[in-house]
Amino acid sequence: MKNFILIPDSFKGTMSSETICRIMAEKIKKFVPDAKITSIPVADGGEGSVDCFLSAVGGTKKFAVVQGPFGEDTEGFYAILPDGETAVIEMACCAGLPLAEGRLDPLKATTYGVGQLMLAAIRDGVKNIILGLGGSATNDGACGLAAALWVRFINSEYGFFIPVGGSLKEIDQIDISQLHPEIKNIKITAMCDIDNPMFGSTGAAHIFAPQKGADEQTVKMLDDGLKHLNNVFIKEFGKDMSELHGGGAAGGMGAGVSALLNAELKMGIDTVLDTVSFDEKLKTADMIFTGEGKIDGQSLRGKVVIGVARRAQKTDTPVTAVVGSISDEADKAYDEGVTAIFSTNTRAVAFEKSRLFAEENLGIVMENIMRFMKAI
Amino acid sequence: MKNFILIPDSFKGTMSSETICRIMAEKIKKFVPDAKITSIPVADGGEGSVDCFLSAVGGTKKFAVVQGPFGEDTEGFYAILPDGETAVIEMACCAGLPLAEGRLDPLKATTYGVGQLMLAAIRDGVKNIILGLGGSATNDGACGLAAALWVRFINSEYGFFIPVGGSLKEIDQIDISQLHPEIKNIKITAMCDIDNPMFGSTGAAHIFAPQKGADEQTVKMLDDGLKHLNNVFIKEFGKDMSELHGGGAAGGMGAGVSALLNAELKMGIDTVLDTVSFDEKLKTADMIFTGEGKIDGQSLRGKVVIGVARRAQKTDTPVTAVVGSISDEADKAYDEGVTAIFSTNTRAVAFEKSRLFAEENLGIVMENIMRFMKAI
Repeated sequence: MKNFILIPDSFKGTMSSETICRIMAEKIKKFVPDAKITSIPVADGGEGSVDCFLSAVGGTKKFAVVQGPFGEDTEGFYAILPDGETAVIEMACCAGLPLAEGRLDPLKATTYGVGQLMLAAIRDGVKNIILGLGGSATNDGACGLAAALWVRFINSEYGFFIPVGGSLKEIDQIDISQLHPEIKNIKITAMCDIDNPMFGSTGAAHIFAPQKGADEQTVKMLDDGLKHLNNVFIKEFGKDMSELHGGGAAGGMGAGVSALLNAELKMGIDTVLDTVSFDEKLKTADMIFTGEGKIDGQSLRGKVVIGVARRAQKTDTPVTAVVGSISDEADKAYDEGVTAIFSTNTRAVAFEKSRLFAEENLGIVMENIMRFMKAI
Repeated sequence: MKNFILIPDSFKGTMSSETICRIMAEKIKKFVPDAKITSIPVADGGEGSVDCFLSAVGGTKKFAVVQGPFGEDTEGFYAILPDGETAVIEMACCAGLPLAEGRLDPLKATTYGVGQLMLAAIRDGVKNIILGLGGSATNDGACGLAAALWVRFINSEYGFFIPVGGSLKEIDQIDISQLHPEIKNIKITAMCDIDNPMFGSTGAAHIFAPQKGADEQTVKMLDDGLKHLNNVFIKEFGKDMSELHGGGAAGGMGAGVSALLNAELKMGIDTVLDTVSFDEKLKTADMIFTGEGKIDGQSLRGKVVIGVARRAQKTDTPVTAVVGSISDEADKAYDEGVTAIFSTNTRAVAFEKSRLFAEENLGIVMENIMRFMKAI
């Protein structure tokens, strides 16, 4: 075995996927010095997604001053991948929770800056935009983003305005005729690993707005706003987003980019696999190492390990998953193409303790997997 | 890979070595249906040792009514191994803690019954006796055992008596001339996995008597008794047991059988390896699975995993250890011949919780090791 692909998700709360790739690669090299290793740290669309893509396939990181979550100047960034035609943008870089820390206000936060980054990428001549939806501080249904791309939101008094979470209900019409003309030539893929709908009891506001600073009353207001926005989508474009899986991602941004920009919502892992031409890389791979914090029933919906395994199954390439925790339904993963699952827990201690040794433990487990592999 | 040897220690507090062998064998068979599996559950000399030997090499289990820890009739047992020349006796079967539960008294408990079992084995014509020293309720320095084998203990008034923990100080002379004549033709091996000396601050009484029911004052009395016994050994036989590693095993029984019967004290694993002709079995083995509750600095002193690995290293046979916990110094095990170490912790939970799922977790880990092996 010489040819390894490393394609782990991050372990939430302990290690980034890049750190995991580094430790895995180090241990593989120790036992197979001439190993050919392809590292593809996986991003789920949240913070760090742009760097993950850059680290997986290379490319250029570009910077642009755009609006932050409350309209202030902030330095956003995006990646232009080596094909020169694909941009990767993570919404969190200019509308994410860390930027709003200490002043969380989902009634006022905007995704306008994200639209500005898209404009910058359009000026770079890209044909594809990958939009990471995780970690938002906003609840504006992508209205800010769309406004930056020249969509006009009009209230009942025929005034133009840029809607935020608290003013979604004021939208009476949406004039999409002025939308940046290049958008129709660009394939927009929104990375989104959640299923939640735009609104309702499992929607963006009810599930995610509390962590963005919303109290009970605010949650209701935000939910009503998104429901109203969908009514306008229906009225203006005949598009009902209420059933869209992931429509609730990033404060209704999933629904917004879908309705306004015809974006495709896609699981993060599938976006990554397609972008890095994974099926091509599979052809020469002898072994794939993947991983995620916890393998369980949720994983079977297509999180990283299963997403990878389903592709690898087609070429019969062994997939070894290193995970923080193996849950009850994990054995169903075997049917999806996972060869073996190893846990990073080297001792019987609770997560509060074990998390402090996450990197060391991953190293120990990888060391032993490689030692075992060499001995076979 | 077809030829597997399973040779695990028990996981203290969770699984017997026989249970571990069963689970390992089940998972190996699942992936290598035509596997040839040799199961050698390891005993450390404590409770269950006789059954372990029987399960590892076969033989006959024999029963005999002998004295229990307080002189009452109890049903003891021992194994005659298939060579017909080796008996295995665990002292715990007639002088162990469970038998003394509710009436613990190390001042009065005796190893007399163990000597009776040895007598029975001698009558069976054995040439070797393996004596397991773990789990004792006694602190009599093997005087009871020796008395059953016709050694005479004499007090200062020229009276014969059978010393117990509380009367060791009354020994004035030991008359060994009447010792059963067959003993000199029998090789006695005492299995002993502890290092503690006969007496002193790390000796039998100070370290182990409290769990046998001794309070502080009793501990001192027992320690003084063992020290006195050693002085008699010096006076009568010129044998000083004070520095003997493991002399403190089973309430000074290590020192007693060494001084009185010329027994050899040996680590449990080495006794097992020699008894089962491990070196011979190694020649055809493709892979060894071993394990213990925790692999750490202690293990390097020659507990099961390292004991097995040191032998296997000579034939370059891979040794995979499945352990409850991988501690800091575990990587030194590689130098001793351990190929790879896997932990049975599949989740980040404390031992109080994980112990309830010990068998399930061992099954999961073995399943994945075998899946991985098959894929390589």
